[in-house]
This record gives sequence, C-alpha cells and structure tokens, in this order.
Amino acid sequence: MRVAVLHGPRDVRFEERDEPKIMKPTDTIIRVSSACVCGSDLWPYRGIQPIAQPTPMGHEYCGIVEEVGSAVKTVKPGQFVVGSFCISDNTCPNCRAGYQSGCQNLEFMTGAQAPMARVPFADGTLVATPELPSDDIIPSLLTTSDVLGTGWFAADAANVKPGATVAVVGDGAVGLLGVLSAKQMGAERIIAMSRHQTRQKLAKEFGATDIVTERGDDGVARIKELTKGIGADSVLECVGTQESMMQAVRSTRPGGSIGYVGVPHGVQLNAEQLFFTLVRLHGGPAPVRRYLPELIKLVFDRKINPGKVFDLTLPLDQVAEGYRAMDERRAIKALLRPSANAKQGARDAA
Amino acid sequence: MRVAVLHGPRDVRFEERDEPKIMKPTDTIIRVSSACVCGSDLWPYRGIQPIAQPTPMGHEYCGIVEEVGSAVKTVKPGQFVVGSFCISDNTCPNCRAGYQSGCQNLEFMTGAQAPMARVPFADGTLVATPELPSDDIIPSLLTTSDVLGTGWFAADAANVKPGATVAVVGDGAVGLLGVLSAKQMGAERIIAMSRHQTRQKLAKEFGATDIVTERGDDGVARIKELTKGIGADSVLECVGTQESMMQAVRSTRPGGSIGYVGVPHGVQLNAEQLFFTLVRLHGGPAPVRRYLPELIKLVFDRKINPGKVFDLTLPLDQVAEGYRAMDERRAIKALLRPSANAKQGARDAA
Repeated sequence: MRVAVLHGPRDVRFEERDEPKIMKPTDTIIRVSSACVCGSDLWPYRGIQPIAQPTPMGHEYCGIVEEVGSAVKTVKPGQFVVGSFCISDNTCPNCRAGYQSGCQNLEFMTGAQAPMARVPFADGTLVATPELPSDDIIPSLLTTSDVLGTGWFAADAANVKPGATVAVVGDGAVGLLGVLSAKQMGAERIIAMSRHQTRQKLAKEFGATDIVTERGDDGVARIKELTKGIGADSVLECVGTQESMMQAVRSTRPGGSIGYVGVPHGVQLNAEQLFFTLVRLHGGPAPVRRYLPELIKLVFDRKINPGKVFDLTLPLDQVAEGYRAMDERRAIKALLRPSANAKQGARDAA
Repeated sequence: MRVAVLHGPRDVRFEERDEPKIMKPTDTIIRVSSACVCGSDLWPYRGIQPIAQPTPMGHEYCGIVEEVGSAVKTVKPGQFVVGSFCISDNTCPNCRAGYQSGCQNLEFMTGAQAPMARVPFADGTLVATPELPSDDIIPSLLTTSDVLGTGWFAADAANVKPGATVAVVGDGAVGLLGVLSAKQMGAERIIAMSRHQTRQKLAKEFGATDIVTERGDDGVARIKELTKGIGADSVLECVGTQESMMQAVRSTRPGGSIGYVGVPHGVQLNAEQLFFTLVRLHGGPAPVRRYLPELIKLVFDRKINPGKVFDLTLPLDQVAEGYRAMDERRAIKALLRPSANAKQGARDAA
C-alpha cells in the first residue's frame, strides 16, 4: 500500500510500505475511511520539530475494523470506529481518572495517512459508532479523533460554564472547534481572535459573537474593552507560541482559566508574572478518549457539524498538496480520502 | 508610637512614627492586638527583593477598631476585627468573583507591626468576630489574616477533595497550615515534605499521614512510591523557588492540581514540559477575604488551632529578633504583641 511519509522539512512523499499486521493480541487493523493533516503535523513539516528518520504521518483517523487481535473485546470486524490520537489502555489509574493522554501505556498514533493502519490497545483507544455512518457525517466523525476532541478539551480545561465569556486565541481548526465547543458548553459570549475573513466567518457559524483582529497589546486591550476591563472568564490557547500564550494569560480575568492545547514551542512562563495574574492554567495533549462517546453522539444526532473545518478534500495520493495548502494557510484543514469507495469497502466488510 | 521599619538587608529597626490617621472616608484605624512576621517578609529582609526606602513592615493583623471613616458601614469602634493582607473593596467584579486579591482597587497592607494601623477599604477588607475573643484564640485568629488564609487557598487552588492524596512542598508556616487546610477539606492522605523534626511533628499534629525528607529527584521518586507510581491528586507549593516548583510539578498526577502560593522568585516554567505533565496550575496572592468568615468561625468553634504555628512570642519592641529567628529557621513563626494589655485596651474601647 502507499502511505504518506515525511522525509524532512517540506518533503512529504506518498510511497510504498508493507500493510500493517496484528503484532500484539490487543491490536486492531482498520481500513481508513478518512484521515487528515493536523496543525501539529506542520511543526515537523516546517522543520521546527526535527525528525530522526523518514516518518509515516497521520494520527487522526476513522474507518472500518478489518481485523482484531485475540484479546480485543469491544470492537469487531465491520464496525465503523473512531480512535484517539493518543493510544491508551483505558484501564490504568490515569485513564480511569479521565486522563487517557497520560496513560501509563501511552503511545502516540502515527501512520494513519494511509489506506490501512494498526491501532494498538484497540479496546482502550477506539469507540465504535452505533451504526455505519452515512457519508456526509464522516468528516465530522473524523474531527472527534483529535481536532474537535482537542478544541473540546481546551474549553473543558478552561472551565467554560453556561453564561461564560470566552476568548479563543488561534483561528486554526482547533481554535475554530474550540469556539464550537464553548458554544456547546453554554458560553454566552465567545470572542474569536482572527485576522482571516474565511476563518472569521466559520467562527461565527460555530458560535462566535465577537471577532478581534488585533494582536499583542492591542489584542489584550480589545479583549479588556469588550469585558468591561476585567478579561474573559475562560481563554482557549490553541497555537503554542510565546506570543499566543501571553495573549491568553493577559486576556484572562483574575480567577479565570486558560485551557492550552497548542503544543508549546519555545514557550517560557515567568512564574512571578503568572502568580499575580491569578489565572488557572490547564492543558496538554487532549484526553480525547474520554470525550469520544459524547462527541460521536453529538455528531450522529446532527447537533454539531465540526466537519465544516475541512475546506479542502483530496485523494490520499495528493497528501503533499494537503500539507502545502495548510502550511501556506490556503486551507484551514485538509481531509484525505484513501479511496473513493471507502464506504463501499465498509459495506463489503460488514 | 514605635513601629517596625526595614531599612535594608537584615536591618529592622523599632522606631518612632506618627500615629495613623483616617485619610479617606473608607479608612479604619485599629489598635493591633497581635501581628507577626511573614515568610514573605524574609524576601526583602534577606535583600532578595530590594526596597526603595525605609519601609514600615507587617501585613498580618487583628485587633480592636479604634476609629472609622464616615463611609464605613460594617465595622464599628470596639469590635475585634481580622483583615486580609490584601486591601480590597469587595464590590468590584473581581472581588465578587471571589478574587479579592485581584481587586480593581487592590493595595497590599503594610505597617501592621505597630501598635496602631490604618486599614483602607475597611468594609471590603475587615471582618468582625462575633464577640470579643478570649486571649487564647487570638493567635489562631491572627493566622486567618494571611498565613492560614494562604495555606487554605493553596489547598483550594490545588482542588483538594474528600479522599484525596495531597503532597505539601514547604514546611514553613504556610505549608504547615496547608496541611491543616487539606485535612479540613477531607484529604485522606497528606504527605508533608520536611527535614526538620519540630516541623514534622507539627505537620503530623495538623493531619499529615506521611513525611518525606528527600528532595529533588529522590523526593519525586518517594512521592511516586507512596502513590503507586501515579503522583498526588493535589500538590501545595508553599515556597516559591525553582526547585520547589519543579518538585510540585513532578509530584502531581496527570490531571492533578497544583496550588502555588509561595511568591515565585526567579522561577521559569518550560511550557512544553508542563504541557506533557497534564497538571493544573493555580495560585497567586490568596483571596483571604473570601475565606475569612469561614476561617474565623472554625477558630471560634475551636475546630482548628492554627495558632500553633507560633513557636515564638515577643513583645513588639523585640521585632528584630523575630526576623532573625525566622531567617535562621530557629522559629517557624514569630508572634508580636504591641502591648501586654491589648485585651484590656479592647475592653476599654468597648
């Protein structure tokens, strides 16, 4: 089969690799219905996060179970499943506490930008949908695997409550789905920070009530102006740079909360400065597995349509263009289809 | 009157100053029954936090109201009051959200190591006791002004819940009262980190179930060992150094919470490292005013005896010895009595 492999900065190749095999009794092989390019894939793509060797890419995925290991109990061949980008056993104390992204057997998924993928710890990582989904909701189901789950965690970590005033730093797909998540959690006012018209438009569709185009001191001043000088109750930091983190810290009211989910790159926090802001800081890799059942249900019930973040759909063999389009911010998020007849394949398997 | 004034590193003088006067209608003048030396007073005392000019010291206080400004409504002459070390109006949005230490009119109390002190925003800062307290509980009431209120905030910010496993970094008075606070909040297991026998003993009296004497990597390993490899649910950081903060971060389970109340000095947090620990971080100057009614009630009902942290009592004119004893760790905390007959003065005023 042919898969996406990153060889170095801006060098994504679509090349031949062996099909995955069951290696442990807890493994599952899935036929990937849809995968996509993640904002965090851009860090190694841009060379900011070095890679040691050519690396099969892709950690957001959904598809049809093809084969299960002998110990797998909760999913079976023919089922449509969504999995977290964090591989977890879902039985250790950290998982039971709801932090599957801190699992004692944690691995990070990779190699999902491919027609087939091996998912370790299937019982702890995958959730089957109630029935085979219709094609139109597959993009939305795919988002629950990471980008929506991560935006949801940002809102949850930022303690979004009904009636809250929320600010979202970052207008990438995670930030936009952070807006959607805050709306679902009952936020009354959602301020999206964005300079891009198409992203502003989507933010508003997802529930943003205000758009702030300013950044830095001006951005902070604008948020303060919109909140009577106080700052937001909850701020979602969905970028991961020093500037975005300070934007978040300075936009939060005393006693307010920041959920930070952009993987920090070179970000240093001065603890004394943080101390006097009285903000609450929580984040990390999202424990998507905790949220999957709820998010899958919201998608199946058509209460949310997070799949709208995909403004570019490509056959998998054009994966390199997906990376380019996101790198150049021509696309918010690129969806990759390993084959045009994935749904048909699913029906055959069932 | 004679008061404690810091002139420079290790130079505390007891010298003549004018008696305080009502300057604004919201001011109150109190006759100080008891004051004390705070761990945070040691930063400028040691020259780590420079002072621009000779500074009257003392921000923990309780005493009898002597005079009130024309706008003061909630306290009256003759009442015994405790006030927060943070001066707050208790009416602004930040105060109403429970963060009086982020008040829009915030000032920090000073000049309480004196027979008389001016307290601005009396209605927003002071809480009167239900009746004049007996002498034996005055030290405990004094602790609610800062050191207990701060330990309480550390436990609250660290999200201590019934049944929780808690670790406390720092065996100063704040850390010890953090132990007491965690116990009151229902913690099942409380691990105190301390190398000093007298402090270990008091920690146990306050509710510590385990003592860890190791620090650094060994300290983290010991906490992990005591928590089946997971880390504590809640960690109270009561020091404010890089070492103590990292001790806290590394001792917390994924999804666990750190309450940090030691004013950070030169502490830098690597956000990427913090991200992957999945810890929750909250702290700052404690919003003591929020907790005062509850803490005063606990003391009056004799449910807690936080005054035990005072292992040295001195007349105010020996204030310099109080600083020396704490600096050299000969004393946990020094209580200062402006006059032997403060109680009598109180009765006269009433």
